[in-house]
Amino acid sequence: MSFSPDELAAVAWDGDAVVYVDQRLLPHEVRRVRAQSVEEIEDAILTLAVRGAPCIGIFGAYGVALLRARIADDEAFERAARRVRDARPTAVNLAWAVDRVLAAKDLLEEARAIHREQVAMDAAIADAGLDLIPKGAKILTHCNTGPIATAGGGTALGVIVQAARAGKKPHVFVDETRPLLQGSRLTYFELAQAGVDATLQVDGAAAIAMKTKGIDLVIVGADRIARNGDTANKIGTYGLAILAAHHGIPFYVAAPRSTFDFSMESGDAIHIEERKAEEVTSFGGTRIAPEGAHVYNPAFDVTPGHLVTAFITEYGVVRAPYLDSIPSLELRPRLSALPA
Amino acid sequence: MSFSPDELAAVAWDGDAVVYVDQRLLPHEVRRVRAQSVEEIEDAILTLAVRGAPCIGIFGAYGVALLRARIADDEAFERAARRVRDARPTAVNLAWAVDRVLAAKDLLEEARAIHREQVAMDAAIADAGLDLIPKGAKILTHCNTGPIATAGGGTALGVIVQAARAGKKPHVFVDETRPLLQGSRLTYFELAQAGVDATLQVDGAAAIAMKTKGIDLVIVGADRIARNGDTANKIGTYGLAILAAHHGIPFYVAAPRSTFDFSMESGDAIHIEERKAEEVTSFGGTRIAPEGAHVYNPAFDVTPGHLVTAFITEYGVVRAPYLDSIPSLELRPRLSALPA
Repeated sequence: MSFSPDELAAVAWDGDAVVYVDQRLLPHEVRRVRAQSVEEIEDAILTLAVRGAPCIGIFGAYGVALLRARIADDEAFERAARRVRDARPTAVNLAWAVDRVLAAKDLLEEARAIHREQVAMDAAIADAGLDLIPKGAKILTHCNTGPIATAGGGTALGVIVQAARAGKKPHVFVDETRPLLQGSRLTYFELAQAGVDATLQVDGAAAIAMKTKGIDLVIVGADRIARNGDTANKIGTYGLAILAAHHGIPFYVAAPRSTFDFSMESGDAIHIEERKAEEVTSFGGTRIAPEGAHVYNPAFDVTPGHLVTAFITEYGVVRAPYLDSIPSLELRPRLSALPA
Repeated sequence: MSFSPDELAAVAWDGDAVVYVDQRLLPHEVRRVRAQSVEEIEDAILTLAVRGAPCIGIFGAYGVALLRARIADDEAFERAARRVRDARPTAVNLAWAVDRVLAAKDLLEEARAIHREQVAMDAAIADAGLDLIPKGAKILTHCNTGPIATAGGGTALGVIVQAARAGKKPHVFVDETRPLLQGSRLTYFELAQAGVDATLQVDGAAAIAMKTKGIDLVIVGADRIARNGDTANKIGTYGLAILAAHHGIPFYVAAPRSTFDFSMESGDAIHIEERKAEEVTSFGGTRIAPEGAHVYNPAFDVTPGHLVTAFITEYGVVRAPYLDSIPSLELRPRLSALPA
């Protein structure tokens, strides 16, 4: 089934509601839901119907602008805005976007600006990565970094789709990405919708795919990047980087400047969050492992900077030595205002 | 829940039936099923209620012995035996065991001998591997290589359980082993039953576990091993071997002599079977990926011999250079008759 870009827009403003795609139902159903109350907005975030850090931020920004228009009482509005802001405490983008909207004169215009900037930033990343993708490239990717996650064009997936638009005919090997299967559920779906050839595989098939399928490059997103290039990203990324190095395949990380943590010298300080056992012991309501199984379920891992061939940012391609090139990113002027 | 060894015996003879554990119901239910007719025997194999190459062979051997006692007519018996033998054409052990039983005077005694030999062979492998396991070892394993798969003590898992019995208190990190989840469903269950500490993880967590959890060694089984040590095993094994080498962790393969293909110079000639897409796109009746998704689903991969630290066989530990040590395995005398 094929959907229009409007139908697939992760977050949109329709005049008197924030409209989102319920990501829990993908890829089986594209259901557009209108959120109008603080309860509906908070719920969408809490239940992961809306997910992906930038996407949550934009959703929260529109949400607060909407609530301002609907709640006359200042104190009641502030309470509502705080509920939205705190719905997911670990999502930095959410608090940042809500605060920015709250500080603006025209809240809706500020939410729209945040959204526009995301779209432009993703587009700049996609442009920056274009030269790294050879014609007919076989590309391996992990997790989900597409429009659904950013409410823009995506990061790593944005580069791939841009390469396809430029006529490079990439073929993408998509890791299913256990435990939450973002690869099967979201990335494969988004590539199919964009008309990009893709093949789905279990995470354990990455090594043999690199050896026998002629993979030309790996490209992934990031959750946080330290000054030396150490990169926290979805569990499985570190292993992929080692496999890529072993096979002599370039390993790229696509991420905006906001993902770089310029205060962090290396990835050693990154705390590896462990998530609940049920993500591994059950699937779709079906229990897989024995009752009470002891589980190691790290949400992400840290890839050492020396395994990253280059970073693809909205400021261009950033190469080693990272202790020089990454800190200098911080000093670059803010990208100029972007067309609406 | 804890079960007795008899309750967990993958295959057993009870006087007038072949009794097996229905492996499809594990780990949630240990159901012992009695097979008496050719239909019941064939069905158990076809539906994967009985799986694991050695286990299928022993099951088929008892099955044919049972049918001989129940079917007076020679021609009807031969037809029945052929149905059992051909139930899974790719399972070499099945045809081999059935042929061996058919060639014997006392069919049941021959089936029992095959079973006894498996138990003794697994025990010899477990003994051979004991010195390789340090006290308190943290061991990573992949797929299922335990009693359920061999109807003996298991290969890689046999070594681990033996180390536990010897008081070495190993802790095992179990890869869930997508797509069929033999790690979650069978290996974790078998370790728990044997009282061995274990932790379950997604396959993508292996690299970070090696880096941060102090993994001391990796031990896996094998489907086929060439003269140079190239090893075909469950998908994901090749990647694990690369990760182990990267982290300076020994990578062992436990397998009986019968798994070595002495006619094969290297693994290049091993055909990598691809299995159906549904194993990746669905789970437990729940569809994960979009309809019609294109899938790469290799059943196994080939690990180059140079990434294998040593092979653990019933003849002892076999080390590089493999082009010398593996062919010499073929010349070793058959292990002497084993106690019943």
